Amino acid sequence: MFSPSIQKLIDLFSRFPTVGPRTAARFVFYLMKISKEEIEELINSISNLKKTVKICSFCFNPFEGEGELCKICADSSRDRTLLCVIEKETDLFTLEKTKKYKGLYFILGGTVSTFKKADVEKLRTKELKERIKSYPEIKEVIIATNPTTEGEATALYLERLLKKNLPALPTGQAGGRQVTRLGRGLPVGAELEYADEETLGSALEGRK
Amino acid sequence: MFSPSIQKLIDLFSRFPTVGPRTAARFVFYLMKISKEEIEELINSISNLKKTVKICSFCFNPFEGEGELCKICADSSRDRTLLCVIEKETDLFTLEKTKKYKGLYFILGGTVSTFKKADVEKLRTKELKERIKSYPEIKEVIIATNPTTEGEATALYLERLLKKNLPALPTGQAGGRQVTRLGRGLPVGAELEYADEETLGSALEGRK
Amino acid sequence: MFSPSIQKLIDLFSRFPTVGPRTAARFVFYLMKISKEEIEELINSISNLKKTVKICSFCFNPFEGEGELCKICADSSRDRTLLCVIEKETDLFTLEKTKKYKGLYFILGGTVSTFKKADVEKLRTKELKERIKSYPEIKEVIIATNPTTEGEATALYLERLLKKNLPALPTGQAGGRQVTRLGRGLPVGAELEYADEETLGSALEGRK
Amino acid sequence: MFSPSIQKLIDLFSRFPTVGPRTAARFVFYLMKISKEEIEELINSISNLKKTVKICSFCFNPFEGEGELCKICADSSRDRTLLCVIEKETDLFTLEKTKKYKGLYFILGGTVSTFKKADVEKLRTKELKERIKSYPEIKEVIIATNPTTEGEATALYLERLLKKNLPALPTGQAGGRQVTRLGRGLPVGAELEYADEETLGSALEGRK
Repeated sequence: MFSPSIQKLIDLFSRFPTVGPRTAARFVFYLMKISKEEIEELINSISNLKKTVKICSFCFNPFEGEGELCKICADSSRDRTLLCVIEKETDLFTLEKTKKYKGLYFILGGTVSTFKKADVEKLRTKELKERIKSYPEIKEVIIATNPTTEGEATALYLERLLKKNLPALPTGQAGGRQVTRLGRGLPVGAELEYADEETLGSALEGRK
Repeated sequence: MFSPSIQKLIDLFSRFPTVGPRTAARFVFYLMKISKEEIEELINSISNLKKTVKICSFCFNPFEGEGELCKICADSSRDRTLLCVIEKETDLFTLEKTKKYKGLYFILGGTVSTFKKADVEKLRTKELKERIKSYPEIKEVIIATNPTTEGEATALYLERLLKKNLPALPTGQAGGRQVTRLGRGLPVGAELEYADEETLGSALEGRK
Repeated sequence: MFSPSIQKLIDLFSRFPTVGPRTAARFVFYLMKISKEEIEELINSISNLKKTVKICSFCFNPFEGEGELCKICADSSRDRTLLCVIEKETDLFTLEKTKKYKGLYFILGGTVSTFKKADVEKLRTKELKERIKSYPEIKEVIIATNPTTEGEATALYLERLLKKNLPALPTGQAGGRQVTRLGRGLPVGAELEYADEETLGSALEGRK
Repeated sequence: MFSPSIQKLIDLFSRFPTVGPRTAARFVFYLMKISKEEIEELINSISNLKKTVKICSFCFNPFEGEGELCKICADSSRDRTLLCVIEKETDLFTLEKTKKYKGLYFILGGTVSTFKKADVEKLRTKELKERIKSYPEIKEVIIATNPTTEGEATALYLERLLKKNLPALPTGQAGGRQVTRLGRGLPVGAELEYADEETLGSALEGRK
């Protein structure tokens, strides 16, 4: 029903994460209202993105500037014995905001719901294994996938992979190198009454 | 915390309707992942928008093609005695989808929450008055603003304006030309028990 | 896990509308906390309910006092040409609060999702037919079931029943006696963009 | 608008936790519909509650049966070195369902939002101090209030109280007797992106 140029742009915006056709249409009408200069600014920004932004050769975090490493990986004050494996770029910024983590990151690039080869190969597992092999200073790999079904499946896959391929990396506190997971428990604002049994069990076990 | 080019684009996307900084960040990381060709396609689409899309000289609906009128305004089978005044472009498409309306539209370009001159002048009221003066064939102006507080205030303002400036346009069924409003009542799926008194009152009055 | 007396009462409260076992448990612990006098008051109130409250012989509205008719049915100032058929008792009070309706009511006692005999017989259809037959002064029957799937099915069933059994009661404005439905349209606070097509179509048709 | 007996019962049900006047009205209409026998059963159950149900002299858990102790407190297989302090009765059943806790409980009877004497005295703090003094076998007091604002304030108050009054009960793993809290972290189904910083910080610290 929309004219072809508008429909085309609605289709392109509909591919953006979280955007449906209705929101995409609102984006297009927004662009029709703003000035030529603002359109120019947006186009230049999008166009510059791939030119100026590089991908960190260690953690896959997008960055700008000299060298091959992002600011975090290049920062000599970061704790190089810790490697936090996360699903996606925004998780890195979410964790940085807590100011509680001083180690390095590794962006896995997604999650898997099955252990099928085709699915698993979309993740940066080869690169992850390579990092752990090449950097013996890493003493703890923190698997920080979401505690969702997909995130859990991915964590399970990574745990098996790391233990199998890297016998020097046992789970738990015992070994010289270890694989850990983010702590489970009650989040701020929760009520015991409405918590699921697994979360509550974790909260009981993780008391301190 | 994000690198300057990324932050810049996050800021620009954050101006899009319904988009906050978190969603804007996801948009940027999405753009970082797609191919050069897809980026090119998006940029061209945005850039072409203002070049190929025109604004209908009657209803302000964006369109492509020959002439000065959009498809609806140019369609001789539409009922030219009806003019439906709507807040924004998407409302036109929403109403068209019902296939229940065969008249013309007029896109007001927004709503007002006060009757202050500065606010009111942002709406296309001058153009609306002009349309009604120039097109005596219009027999009914349907004010189809949202039944929200702002939409209601705007409808009230338009009703006063049309009646004051155009005495030949009384509200109600009596006059030769009239101003109407969309019917109020219970929507599909509603329950009497949870309906507000005004809606329920309208449903009672509007029974048939 | 609860002790038998507590579990028994949880089970009984769980039969209350909208109450699940968790809420039922909270009710029981609430009762354990309040004073003997408050318990006594509650028990007396429940116990008196069936003794003092009668069911109106015309509309099935529960009431207290002399005679066989509730306050509304006994009120000679109400418009006896209008009969509003509602699903349940609370709908009567919801409609009364609007102060827009001055006719009589008839509480149907539920809804049906199928037209199976067993389902339909749970409704007070026999009594409804009898009322319309015995009270020729009723000129309009307003079917005020909820515009939900079940409410709509019930309304459809009632329309057929009334027209079939009572040919003098056509739908629409034409006949001497008529069957109507509550007006459909946009409720207060709605936005065109998020309204379903049927509601929007009704709003267009019902404009005034 | 309702008749006096109905209104009276609506008022009484409105005092029940989570019940508003609309739900209370539905309760009353539900009671009007059920049989005399069912009413009788409900009244007997409510009336028996205070007669047959006792309050455990150790943990304040309601129970039925011989003696002064509830089933849990009387169960010699429970771990008497652990005392879990909870806000209310239902929290006990919620924790029992996890089957992860084998110690004893103590029902505090509420929470405080301020440390005002009048507020604090509504809690069973005197009894809690007495329990810890009289039962030297208790080695760990787990404060299991909700991680809500009120629950946190209450936990803080209890921690101070226990440490001040009972110097042999330090927080943390060091002492012979200790005060702990339920573990904080990400609950099942959470996403890092939407977790608050405090929860995420706890999840990082509590990794294992």
